[in-house]
Amino acid sequence: MRFAVTTLGTGAALPARGRYPSAQLLNIRERLFLMDCGEGTQERLRMAQVNLGRIARVFISHMHGDHYLGLMGLISSMHLLGRNMALHVHGPAELREVIELQLRVSGTYLRFPLHFYPVQHTSGALVMKDDRVEVTELALKHRVQSTGFLFREAPRPRKLIKERVDIIPHYARRAVKLGEDLLLPDGRIVPNAELTEPPTPPRSYAYCSDTAQVPDLAPFLHGVDLLYHEATFTESLAGRAKETMHSTAKQAATLARDAQVGQLMLGHFSSRYKDVSVLLAEAVEYFPNTILAREGDTYEVGETGVQG
Amino acid sequence: MRFAVTTLGTGAALPARGRYPSAQLLNIRERLFLMDCGEGTQERLRMAQVNLGRIARVFISHMHGDHYLGLMGLISSMHLLGRNMALHVHGPAELREVIELQLRVSGTYLRFPLHFYPVQHTSGALVMKDDRVEVTELALKHRVQSTGFLFREAPRPRKLIKERVDIIPHYARRAVKLGEDLLLPDGRIVPNAELTEPPTPPRSYAYCSDTAQVPDLAPFLHGVDLLYHEATFTESLAGRAKETMHSTAKQAATLARDAQVGQLMLGHFSSRYKDVSVLLAEAVEYFPNTILAREGDTYEVGETGVQG
Repeated sequence: MRFAVTTLGTGAALPARGRYPSAQLLNIRERLFLMDCGEGTQERLRMAQVNLGRIARVFISHMHGDHYLGLMGLISSMHLLGRNMALHVHGPAELREVIELQLRVSGTYLRFPLHFYPVQHTSGALVMKDDRVEVTELALKHRVQSTGFLFREAPRPRKLIKERVDIIPHYARRAVKLGEDLLLPDGRIVPNAELTEPPTPPRSYAYCSDTAQVPDLAPFLHGVDLLYHEATFTESLAGRAKETMHSTAKQAATLARDAQVGQLMLGHFSSRYKDVSVLLAEAVEYFPNTILAREGDTYEVGETGVQG
Repeated sequence: MRFAVTTLGTGAALPARGRYPSAQLLNIRERLFLMDCGEGTQERLRMAQVNLGRIARVFISHMHGDHYLGLMGLISSMHLLGRNMALHVHGPAELREVIELQLRVSGTYLRFPLHFYPVQHTSGALVMKDDRVEVTELALKHRVQSTGFLFREAPRPRKLIKERVDIIPHYARRAVKLGEDLLLPDGRIVPNAELTEPPTPPRSYAYCSDTAQVPDLAPFLHGVDLLYHEATFTESLAGRAKETMHSTAKQAATLARDAQVGQLMLGHFSSRYKDVSVLLAEAVEYFPNTILAREGDTYEVGETGVQG
């Protein structure tokens, strides 16, 4: 059961050096979520051979163009491709205004329901929950309201012990995986503990888009398997980071260390960095298990950082 | 003195087959004008090595996303690159709303003046005029208000006759080129006709973006050197063209013939055409001097269709 993130864009506000603006695709047990949607995201999705029709939800962190300007084009393409499944969009309240105005002036009546949910910008606030995942908010700090998203996988079923599988009738397997004892046809009861092992622990992913350093996030991020955090600058530009309300690689790594996450992924690289390895070099001093987001690559979450 | 058009995007609403949505760059004597600006246009401009800061004016035909969704990103990049020269934007009144809302919600205060001029949607209405070009409107017919633009080069100076150049003092050359007689230091007057030849005739380019067939445009387009006209479909899909208010290749060619233009360029190809030569084959039956717009190519206007 997959839990993987594909980085569709790793650049900052000014597109350059072949880096696209922010966008990531999260695949949680074959349900697809898009986080941010900069200009050109639909092209990136096509390059990654993603069927646009399968994207269930979109999460927009904030209203800077490099994080949402690709959304109208994506919605338009979904419409033209005949989508009828509802699309759920989470983001700042202003995003609804921008979408509605543009649908209106283009005279577009979408073929599919588009549901919009404004974020509350409150760490821990529930965004959505279904059978596969629970999403909560992370209140970031930026020049405009910016919200991160924390994805926690729903608990997975217990694993059947190989040697005992044969005694469990097919109709009873689902219940046993969910923890029930087994009632055999002859009336005997087999305790669940003799049939199953604990499930693989649920995986988690945090998406911290544009933000200044927010140390109060550490408790919310405690122990997440993979933390994506922006790292627009190195410490030598800490002043510029403060002024623009972005983070340095050191700041991202310090948060990862304080929150004891499994792995840190850096992105949103300023166009001034031709070679982004300087950002990695800075971060690993504070948090060794750090990687750089690479354009178009897919990362399996919770597999000790093995790249897919 | 250049008069050239670069086709940055030749696709229709659904991006596909490596074709970008609509955008063209017009270079009139080194003044740059952008016509339409679909998603990804700034990337196409970079690929064409165009300095964004040099673009003086943008003309948006209509409010369908594939013609304007790249504009906010372009404006944002101009801002981030430190532009201070004013940008003039011509388009439907709704475009101003869309720009202003997005600047507001992103908290952006542009470093440069952005002047917006709503179109009147009246064929022949003056859009702008300066020392190099006069631009007038072409009222197209589409599902939303759609306006084409006709660019007529300002009259060019007369050409000095090579053999007589030596007798004209440097300070007087400009006046002679503009048609004045020459007063020599000894009091003699040399008539202009003995010094100059008629100038190269001014060149003209018409941009007819999304539209159903509009035969009434013929008098406005009479004799233009290059007519760009959309040709989304072939005649076999004339019903679909009518329904969506687009044109077939035959319809575009018929207008070119009726208007006696120099050359016709087709674009805005439906994503259903992998090979667009069927559109060319249809058009040349009605207007032989037809070419297909090719992604990223530059065409010199008025040079009997020689490609730059």
